[in-house]
Amino acid sequence: MIISEETKSATADRQLFIKMVVSNWELQNQRFNGLIDNLSDEQMLLPVAAGKNRAVYLLGHMIAVNDGIIPLLGLGERLFPDLETPFVKNPDDITAQIPSVAELRGNWVELNKTLTAYFNEMSADEWFTKHSAISEENFAKEPHRNKLNILINRTNHEAYHLGQLIFLKP
Amino acid sequence: MIISEETKSATADRQLFIKMVVSNWELQNQRFNGLIDNLSDEQMLLPVAAGKNRAVYLLGHMIAVNDGIIPLLGLGERLFPDLETPFVKNPDDITAQIPSVAELRGNWVELNKTLTAYFNEMSADEWFTKHSAISEENFAKEPHRNKLNILINRTNHEAYHLGQLIFLKP
Repeated sequence: MIISEETKSATADRQLFIKMVVSNWELQNQRFNGLIDNLSDEQMLLPVAAGKNRAVYLLGHMIAVNDGIIPLLGLGERLFPDLETPFVKNPDDITAQIPSVAELRGNWVELNKTLTAYFNEMSADEWFTKHSAISEENFAKEPHRNKLNILINRTNHEAYHLGQLIFLKP
Repeated sequence: MIISEETKSATADRQLFIKMVVSNWELQNQRFNGLIDNLSDEQMLLPVAAGKNRAVYLLGHMIAVNDGIIPLLGLGERLFPDLETPFVKNPDDITAQIPSVAELRGNWVELNKTLTAYFNEMSADEWFTKHSAISEENFAKEPHRNKLNILINRTNHEAYHLGQLIFLKP
């Protein structure tokens, strides 16, 4: 197959966009990790401010929401489907049965490793295809609502909760 | 000038990517506005949590940081250079002389109108050129650190503080 210089350049552009988005996601992950690594399991059970979510809830919420990227991008099944009920469908509840902080820390590491591996396997063009929560019809009208857009959106979501978690910074 | 189909398609790609980034910035602005529009000037003087920044500080901080996008992108001068000292170079200080909440609300609206006008005038290719805080040498090595990347980064920054401001939601 002969690939023209223009096609190569279009692919290089797409690779550059992807690098911009993925590197911003990684930056938020680094900040998130830097913060929770400095909080003890006991501190993770504290609310970030009076009457607000506990840090452990925000960690579980982050895992459950970012785990949802896997099916949204058509990459496979969620790793931790059981976390949706306590951390997405319900608000923080001190009486709810939730996994230990140690277990959630492990889930978070495993999820980010898995997402990174999936992202590394995706072709540049695949990122610009539709995600599973938009219809073909709407995607034809709004092609910016592609898989890469999901990662931009989820990165903003992570930054939002990072701004709350930082309140526990020692 | 004859423009090839491939060049047209590369420009369309860039335009799509810009739309993704700008629409995510606009989404954070909409959320930010929805929140501060529902807080009275008196409520804006409250800290978002005990011992944390006041909402008025976060508003001033957001104006000062996003105002910095203008020179970083080589679009012109800051609109409100006087806000850098109280809202970026210094932490929140209840004894500091700062503009009124009403004045800052006006500054924020004016800034976003100005940024939107600037963004609408920028060509697709211009967004992928280097911003003013990176050297030619480093940009040659890291071309993803372009003007559009600044907007991705500032959008995450806005989401981060939005996550804090939400604590005052009535």
